[in-house]
Amino acid sequence: MSLDAVLARLDADLPHAISRLQELLRIPSISTDPAYKGDCDAAADWLVADLQSIGIDASKRQTPGHPMVVGHTGDSGKHLMFYGHYDVQPVDPLDLWDNDPFDPQIEDTPKGKVLRGRGTSDDKGQLMTFVEACRAWKAVHGTLPGRLSFFFEGEEESGSPSLVPFMRDNADELRSDVALICDTGLFADRVPTIVTMLRGLLGEEVTITGPNKDLHSGMYGGAAINPIRVLSKIIAGLHDDQGRITVPGFYDGVPELPTDVAAGWEALNFDHSAFLGDVGLSQPAGEANRSALEMLWSRPTCEVNGISGGYEGDGFKTVLPSKASAKISFRLVGTQDPLAIRESFRAYVTSMLPPDCSVEFTDHGASPAGQMEIGDPAFEAARGALTEEWGVEAAYVGCGGSIPIAGYFKDILGVDAMLIGFGKDDDQLHSPNEKYDVESFHKGMRSWARILNALAEEN
Amino acid sequence: MSLDAVLARLDADLPHAISRLQELLRIPSISTDPAYKGDCDAAADWLVADLQSIGIDASKRQTPGHPMVVGHTGDSGKHLMFYGHYDVQPVDPLDLWDNDPFDPQIEDTPKGKVLRGRGTSDDKGQLMTFVEACRAWKAVHGTLPGRLSFFFEGEEESGSPSLVPFMRDNADELRSDVALICDTGLFADRVPTIVTMLRGLLGEEVTITGPNKDLHSGMYGGAAINPIRVLSKIIAGLHDDQGRITVPGFYDGVPELPTDVAAGWEALNFDHSAFLGDVGLSQPAGEANRSALEMLWSRPTCEVNGISGGYEGDGFKTVLPSKASAKISFRLVGTQDPLAIRESFRAYVTSMLPPDCSVEFTDHGASPAGQMEIGDPAFEAARGALTEEWGVEAAYVGCGGSIPIAGYFKDILGVDAMLIGFGKDDDQLHSPNEKYDVESFHKGMRSWARILNALAEEN
Repeated sequence: MSLDAVLARLDADLPHAISRLQELLRIPSISTDPAYKGDCDAAADWLVADLQSIGIDASKRQTPGHPMVVGHTGDSGKHLMFYGHYDVQPVDPLDLWDNDPFDPQIEDTPKGKVLRGRGTSDDKGQLMTFVEACRAWKAVHGTLPGRLSFFFEGEEESGSPSLVPFMRDNADELRSDVALICDTGLFADRVPTIVTMLRGLLGEEVTITGPNKDLHSGMYGGAAINPIRVLSKIIAGLHDDQGRITVPGFYDGVPELPTDVAAGWEALNFDHSAFLGDVGLSQPAGEANRSALEMLWSRPTCEVNGISGGYEGDGFKTVLPSKASAKISFRLVGTQDPLAIRESFRAYVTSMLPPDCSVEFTDHGASPAGQMEIGDPAFEAARGALTEEWGVEAAYVGCGGSIPIAGYFKDILGVDAMLIGFGKDDDQLHSPNEKYDVESFHKGMRSWARILNALAEEN
Repeated sequence: MSLDAVLARLDADLPHAISRLQELLRIPSISTDPAYKGDCDAAADWLVADLQSIGIDASKRQTPGHPMVVGHTGDSGKHLMFYGHYDVQPVDPLDLWDNDPFDPQIEDTPKGKVLRGRGTSDDKGQLMTFVEACRAWKAVHGTLPGRLSFFFEGEEESGSPSLVPFMRDNADELRSDVALICDTGLFADRVPTIVTMLRGLLGEEVTITGPNKDLHSGMYGGAAINPIRVLSKIIAGLHDDQGRITVPGFYDGVPELPTDVAAGWEALNFDHSAFLGDVGLSQPAGEANRSALEMLWSRPTCEVNGISGGYEGDGFKTVLPSKASAKISFRLVGTQDPLAIRESFRAYVTSMLPPDCSVEFTDHGASPAGQMEIGDPAFEAARGALTEEWGVEAAYVGCGGSIPIAGYFKDILGVDAMLIGFGKDDDQLHSPNEKYDVESFHKGMRSWARILNALAEEN
């Protein structure tokens, strides 16, 4: 059976695959720092050459920022588009790294071998799982299955300023049947997952102004309005005593979880005590009568991410401040409309203002939730392949965070994305001593070989 | 009439009085900055010499901090103790000063002549009004009236760490019939006042901890408790919808205003629209059905002086913070017990904590309100003298702030204080371009001459 041959090839070639990944990791492609512009370019060149070496028609495409890498191969069958990013986060504080972040080495740890360095997990290691699967496939079959495209960006860690314009400008070229995105993780470090629900995000900054300058609380206290008190009352009013959000119309478009998905989540036996216990908590603090996974994946939230006002230094100062501000975000689900919620939120805040207070709002982005069409048989085929590889029933899961690329594929190209990844909870993404388990890398590339095989059979 | 002779002497000697004050102002006695320790010492020496030059038995008294200056004269009659402070606030930001803060000059302004420089109003200029009154009295009479003591400290602007121990250690020497304190201002820049009510102050810092570290709001939002939300709810609950403070027992010991005092305040025709209008407000925001002056002088308050938590920088970060904290102060009146209120406040906060949250309190001081015994005929005598000098009925007023020295005289020595001062609202205390009106200085010293005369006649 040819899949077995591909898997055997991947097993045999693992040391070389690790060497190739180390080469890519040695290029310090920190996208947010202009000092590394040349390195970002070099990483793109490396990928173009690597794709070309396995027969893919790949090229570097300039943008106002760092270049994209785009490649294509094949011309019939299901068109799969693989997305990853070659840029990495900065490495400071450097003194918290045990080793040079850009000289990645294999380390033995109590939990197995890991490759440690910046970008190992996020996202160069994950990106290469797919490339290595293709390389082995090509070595065994002499060709790649169906129609494959590759799309790597170099600005994911710096806000992706060129991504949407590039996708819009090249929509016909990038449109495909399904997108494959490898930038997520295993559930509980052992269950392979396909993320099918992503929460959206609405960010608002609210600044309340009372007096036109900071006042002395002895001289004015009692008679002058205090904007911190006003802001606190606004924030306190955002949730009712059942933990539900009070912004009018907020729950419009929030669906109940389909029973099959609910059953799948139930089967995950999510250990919320351990999840919360790790961060010093014991109880899910969200809406009454919702499970912890619902709170995290399928229910909307309203959080205060920051608050500030008056004297915040050491000691005490009896100031009655002129201004107080808060950064407030909403995680959105289903078909909640971010812009309608923004409007309703702003109307709520304005309605809570006492005389002599004014409010200023700052827009910090608005993106709707993402929901994949798991009716597409490709999803079940991929899920089966993952289950085979990991020996554990693969799960459709939600993701509490926002992965904007999935939304762009849907909104700009009309393409559903399969978010499949092999990261573990302790990968230290964005932090010192980032690592990627060699098992994640190895079984990751084997997973993609199985998925390519399953989707090819579907053709 | 000998009072007229003293007043005439003060008028004639005004240029020299200004020169003397300028000499004292040129000594940069910034008490909070160790670099100026020698200057604080020099200011104390200057005062000792000046008091000695008018026949007062004055000496510099060492403390662990900056020295006190104590002087005495006379041995019979009513014993008056005059208090002032010779230290000043720092001058930064220096570039906001139009002139060298320690080279004070007379300036003509649309509102009259002013002496501009650090300490002109707070408190060297005010302190010297009393010394100059004594100097003129001595020049005319050859002696000073009754029994007089002088008590100048050099740490008022840096928390007075040596004051209470010094007063305790020297209580017998410092005890007097009444204390005179010149560190306050005119009402509406024209009505002389005697402050008879001072609000107390209780300062508390509250830090709420939820998760044991900052979390990603995508990963944990919904399930993890957010300490900013908890803190906001606590703050929002501190006042009811009538503006009253909800801490149990808070209003114990809050008296209604005596009708004669209320009538006196009414007669001041306080222009709260102008007072609030200057800072961009239009309406008194305190308890329902209380006048603005009541809110400022005779009603207790609860203010949030600072709040902080989560991400406060530019842009947005979807953090779910571990901690949130607020600095909260209570202005106290009547016989409210600061320690009982602290205990009740802490119990209230603790009762508002949801599961998985903890609270830490930091004590930032507790002092009760001060209330002078205006039944003492000295108060009416002084009020009459002030009325004579300024041609406006002098008023007993409250003070929204806290002037700890008045409380110390009462608590440690059992002495009531008369707080009389001649500052104006635009004196820029603690700020760049501090000034003192020459009229304040001149009529201030004349006021003290009249008060000395009135109190001497009372003997």
